[in-house]
Amino acid sequence: MKSRKRLNVAMIGYGFMGRAHSNAFHQVGHFFESSYDLRLKLICGRNQPQLKSMATQWGWEEVAGDWEAVVERKDVDVIDICTPNNLHAPIAISAAKAGKIVLCEKPLAISVEESEGMANAAQNVPTLVWFNYRRVPAIALAKKFVDEGRLGQIYHYRATYLQSWGAEPAAADAWRFKQSEAGSGAMGDLLSHSIDLALMLNGPVDEVSALVRTFAPGREVDDAVLMLARFANGSVGSFEATRYAIGCQNRNYLEIHGAKGAIRFDLEDLNRLHVFDASDAKEVHGSHNVLVTGPGHPYTSHFWPPGHILGYEHTFILTMADFLQSLEKDETFHANFQDAVKVQRVLHAVEESSQTGSWASTAMQFANS
Amino acid sequence: MKSRKRLNVAMIGYGFMGRAHSNAFHQVGHFFESSYDLRLKLICGRNQPQLKSMATQWGWEEVAGDWEAVVERKDVDVIDICTPNNLHAPIAISAAKAGKIVLCEKPLAISVEESEGMANAAQNVPTLVWFNYRRVPAIALAKKFVDEGRLGQIYHYRATYLQSWGAEPAAADAWRFKQSEAGSGAMGDLLSHSIDLALMLNGPVDEVSALVRTFAPGREVDDAVLMLARFANGSVGSFEATRYAIGCQNRNYLEIHGAKGAIRFDLEDLNRLHVFDASDAKEVHGSHNVLVTGPGHPYTSHFWPPGHILGYEHTFILTMADFLQSLEKDETFHANFQDAVKVQRVLHAVEESSQTGSWASTAMQFANS
Amino acid sequence: MKSRKRLNVAMIGYGFMGRAHSNAFHQVGHFFESSYDLRLKLICGRNQPQLKSMATQWGWEEVAGDWEAVVERKDVDVIDICTPNNLHAPIAISAAKAGKIVLCEKPLAISVEESEGMANAAQNVPTLVWFNYRRVPAIALAKKFVDEGRLGQIYHYRATYLQSWGAEPAAADAWRFKQSEAGSGAMGDLLSHSIDLALMLNGPVDEVSALVRTFAPGREVDDAVLMLARFANGSVGSFEATRYAIGCQNRNYLEIHGAKGAIRFDLEDLNRLHVFDASDAKEVHGSHNVLVTGPGHPYTSHFWPPGHILGYEHTFILTMADFLQSLEKDETFHANFQDAVKVQRVLHAVEESSQTGSWASTAMQFANS
Amino acid sequence: MKSRKRLNVAMIGYGFMGRAHSNAFHQVGHFFESSYDLRLKLICGRNQPQLKSMATQWGWEEVAGDWEAVVERKDVDVIDICTPNNLHAPIAISAAKAGKIVLCEKPLAISVEESEGMANAAQNVPTLVWFNYRRVPAIALAKKFVDEGRLGQIYHYRATYLQSWGAEPAAADAWRFKQSEAGSGAMGDLLSHSIDLALMLNGPVDEVSALVRTFAPGREVDDAVLMLARFANGSVGSFEATRYAIGCQNRNYLEIHGAKGAIRFDLEDLNRLHVFDASDAKEVHGSHNVLVTGPGHPYTSHFWPPGHILGYEHTFILTMADFLQSLEKDETFHANFQDAVKVQRVLHAVEESSQTGSWASTAMQFANS
Repeated sequence: MKSRKRLNVAMIGYGFMGRAHSNAFHQVGHFFESSYDLRLKLICGRNQPQLKSMATQWGWEEVAGDWEAVVERKDVDVIDICTPNNLHAPIAISAAKAGKIVLCEKPLAISVEESEGMANAAQNVPTLVWFNYRRVPAIALAKKFVDEGRLGQIYHYRATYLQSWGAEPAAADAWRFKQSEAGSGAMGDLLSHSIDLALMLNGPVDEVSALVRTFAPGREVDDAVLMLARFANGSVGSFEATRYAIGCQNRNYLEIHGAKGAIRFDLEDLNRLHVFDASDAKEVHGSHNVLVTGPGHPYTSHFWPPGHILGYEHTFILTMADFLQSLEKDETFHANFQDAVKVQRVLHAVEESSQTGSWASTAMQFANS
Repeated sequence: MKSRKRLNVAMIGYGFMGRAHSNAFHQVGHFFESSYDLRLKLICGRNQPQLKSMATQWGWEEVAGDWEAVVERKDVDVIDICTPNNLHAPIAISAAKAGKIVLCEKPLAISVEESEGMANAAQNVPTLVWFNYRRVPAIALAKKFVDEGRLGQIYHYRATYLQSWGAEPAAADAWRFKQSEAGSGAMGDLLSHSIDLALMLNGPVDEVSALVRTFAPGREVDDAVLMLARFANGSVGSFEATRYAIGCQNRNYLEIHGAKGAIRFDLEDLNRLHVFDASDAKEVHGSHNVLVTGPGHPYTSHFWPPGHILGYEHTFILTMADFLQSLEKDETFHANFQDAVKVQRVLHAVEESSQTGSWASTAMQFANS
Repeated sequence: MKSRKRLNVAMIGYGFMGRAHSNAFHQVGHFFESSYDLRLKLICGRNQPQLKSMATQWGWEEVAGDWEAVVERKDVDVIDICTPNNLHAPIAISAAKAGKIVLCEKPLAISVEESEGMANAAQNVPTLVWFNYRRVPAIALAKKFVDEGRLGQIYHYRATYLQSWGAEPAAADAWRFKQSEAGSGAMGDLLSHSIDLALMLNGPVDEVSALVRTFAPGREVDDAVLMLARFANGSVGSFEATRYAIGCQNRNYLEIHGAKGAIRFDLEDLNRLHVFDASDAKEVHGSHNVLVTGPGHPYTSHFWPPGHILGYEHTFILTMADFLQSLEKDETFHANFQDAVKVQRVLHAVEESSQTGSWASTAMQFANS
Repeated sequence: MKSRKRLNVAMIGYGFMGRAHSNAFHQVGHFFESSYDLRLKLICGRNQPQLKSMATQWGWEEVAGDWEAVVERKDVDVIDICTPNNLHAPIAISAAKAGKIVLCEKPLAISVEESEGMANAAQNVPTLVWFNYRRVPAIALAKKFVDEGRLGQIYHYRATYLQSWGAEPAAADAWRFKQSEAGSGAMGDLLSHSIDLALMLNGPVDEVSALVRTFAPGREVDDAVLMLARFANGSVGSFEATRYAIGCQNRNYLEIHGAKGAIRFDLEDLNRLHVFDASDAKEVHGSHNVLVTGPGHPYTSHFWPPGHILGYEHTFILTMADFLQSLEKDETFHANFQDAVKVQRVLHAVEESSQTGSWASTAMQFANS
């Protein structure tokens, strides 16, 4: 094994995502070789007892309370942001200015303007946005098929992200329902994932028509958002994200229909990709039910033999593995801050369309910003 | 068995739907008792050799070539229309004026105006529109659950009707691609079914935003239509109908999420209904995979014991069975011409919205007509 | 259309199967051209009021009470037997001796000896046994794949036939629980179907080891039967048939694994065949989920366009259609009485093995008979 | 967090299972609190370069080549055995005699006698056998339902463990095909898992009838094994394990039918349990499709929020978590060596039955040993 460069990570925030990131930082070295040696240097947050407990359980060396001091520390190489959304921008911009590698949870920001400020500030540092579902092996396989032209010209892109906990508010993180901290509801939390995958798999969105709805009386953020889209490649898209789909826990679903084939994916069945190949003999036309655990599948050889399934957390491990490889090869990692700005532009068009009742261009609002 | 009143049927048109209707007229008496005795009196169409062949195979007593003469015949009680869409209105209006019972394929007409003319002309005769999917036992079970309030307040209605033969035009009926005969493409052919079910299951649609697309160069009618909807009950809807969903043959899918439960249906799996009941114990929360073949299910006791599945054609048999019962009881049958006018109004709003790029009200265009 | 020869059918018995057969006799001519014109001449049974009601509903011309007279009638060409199992042999033998075409429900008989007597008596008349699942289009497609060698050498054959009504005896036909009338329980009723399909798809069974169980106290017939099998082709088989599989209504399931591919079928999802093709590219290895409704599928072009599903009753229609074609071409139809004798031999070996606790040969008991 | 007792682990063997165990030792402390602090002290094996590479990647402190020396080391508390099967007994017996905690891969041994020797030697030390599938949350939920009597009297137990790599021997670990090292093929590797789950879920097996088959010419071990079983509780069982199920990678499937309900599980869909509850209203009778990720499900609260799926490796983490808890509470852990002896007895009966062609008692061979 090669000699390795140490990378000290400081994580700001320590909730659900803090645990998922901590796990990824630990596990990436077990499954991937790298010239970087990640160290879990410190975690920073407001509640010191909780922070200490988490540091002990996950092996963080230190705890801290003041992120502004943390981003200035010389012994920190990487700032990982998993705070409420309204703090992403100030922390990321400070960290970037201090020359740190910056990792940030999605949605990147609560407005296009903010996200562009972040992207500008971070032009000279490596950035990563935790759009972790890009690294689901089944999604990566879908991307490969699209890139190879195996679906042919794309006609339809369809995505739904269905959860139900908005209807059971007791169970939820309080900040996710506050406009000032979350910026939005299902839009930033769920639709952002669907849009990021759509941009990766099907290219730019030109225009959207959207409907935004809050079902819970008095709630500050949206519970559901529906969107039609015109893609630059001529295909049409249908999107829906909601926290009011009773019975659905994490149904992040997408389906693409092209001239030569189709694919279908559901996050609740993370290890499967359904692939229709129009070139199959007619009598066996039917979606291939592919268990994407190898052989011949993206990423999977790093884990277990074929047939042994992966879980949610592996998407974070894989995100980190690819990021470390991009650092090593000095290549641009995706999704980075620039990629996330594109997502914000679509989210902005969604808001605009939902207010005007007309189609909104993602380019128009780009010109304004 | 009671003595039965003879009803002589004349069918105008003899394609795919002609066979489905012929089958229903034959079979309804085998599975249902009725005070009416349906007779397959005559079929009318342009191609006499084909017509004769069909009459022989399906036991029609006569063939005829002139529908205007047929609707005037004294020995005809029922006119069943399964011609191309542009002929629905003239035939139906003449038949209604002649006092006949009028059955008509969907979409009822090629415009709201035309459909309203038909409904007006037929005010005093029993009418039926072949929105046959209302009588899928699983759909009827869903309707029962909705009516009993078992889904609670509805939040989301989602429907997709996915076919692929638009991309293989050689296989298609030629008239279905002609504006003058079909009026529209996926809209009238597929979306009309989805809208009819939505109106039945979830009530009126107030407004829509829609996108209509023709993928095939030079084709006169739409290949795909996407629609967002605001329902009068406060729920939001997403609809998509396409003939360009490669790999899908007849995926007429719908899903409803309410406060207390959810249901999911796919026509390619016609005998199943997936039912989520939020009042189940948490540890067994999960959609019930219900094989809707009885016991305790709508319609199914008329056919085979539980576990023996029904097919596509049974939806027509059941439509006819309910219609005969409504005649016998002198009750209003649904879907009738008035119901179909409501579908046309939504379709009209779809066209309007797709042209203006803004939301269109189903009420506004109603005022115009 | 060609001029057609009239075939007068007399049906003995009038229960669930009587309805399924009546339907097939009516419908075969609607979906298939034939040089035979089936007439529903008479039904024969003990309960005259029920018989008359059924005759009216299904269009049988006459009713009769004495099967011995019926089989002698000159104006009857075909005897169709759907009585309790113990009457199959006497009726079939008399009918065959009278030169009639003989159709008989399964299981053919209640012993090997009886079935051989029937086959001997019927050597010179066309016979049919209603092993209707051979004509499920998905099963016919599986047969085609096997015959073409597309599964390669077969390693595994697995069949389960799971129902639950044995645990709810109130719902059941009384005669099915009587040893004297039914002969056996799940064995003759369900396992016979699985064995017939296995013999058709995978060839002869050499030996079996079996376990037979009655769960209901005091019941005369078996509720469940499990069987291991050695096939002549070197493959191994696992079979299970039960009326005590709570939650299963009609799960007639089979799965075959060969060197080059695999297929999987479930009667509750009658229109699907899952096909694994080892020659697919590794990255899309996965069962094709084939909706067996055409194009390119057995039988389906006779009914509706692709994507429009068929039901249970179509298997009877297709059985009749193939039978009429075999008459017309003077070819041997399968499954005939000889085929059904082979099923009885396996059932006999099952009983023998369950009594001795050792493997039983299907050839040994053949030598004895 | 409490002060923790250090437990030094030495792992003998370093293949696929070595990685799965290493991961479990690392991860258990991240997701579970414990009074034990596991240390990855040393790994022992024959190939020192491979061993060093693995030690570096997985953070083992030392490497060693001589297991006999390792089991004597004072600074080792736990011996974890993941060598080929023939080495399980000598290592485990030595380790137990040296007073170590002993963890061992399955199958525990290559004969009943050997396994009993191991269990005897280890009477006074804590033992664990890596029957990891006991800790699949869905399986644990099934166990809870069985224990609560929610399935009622059990009628049927059905298990298949289907893999295909036996037909692609190039891909396989060489030792697994050698009689001297593996002891058996599908029997010890796959059927042992199915039997362990059956004994846990459905209690003792009295008798079996089995068929063992090797398809590959010249192969020393079995490729497939089929087994019928009579359980002590009166239910009947069907088992099948094979490495020749083309198209199946890791389909460890089980299904239980009882008087009040049924459950169904497939390891390739690890996070699901299908639950039929006969007490549901008839009209919603159908298996609940339960995503076993909480709330209210075993184990899942330790990982991610509901809807975020777990993978194969979590079963090892959970096994370790429960084992540490049993140590802490001084309770007996299952599956231990005694439990694994019971599995060996069934495997022995399988071999006996396959040789004699008759049913074999698990008690009889117990008396012999």
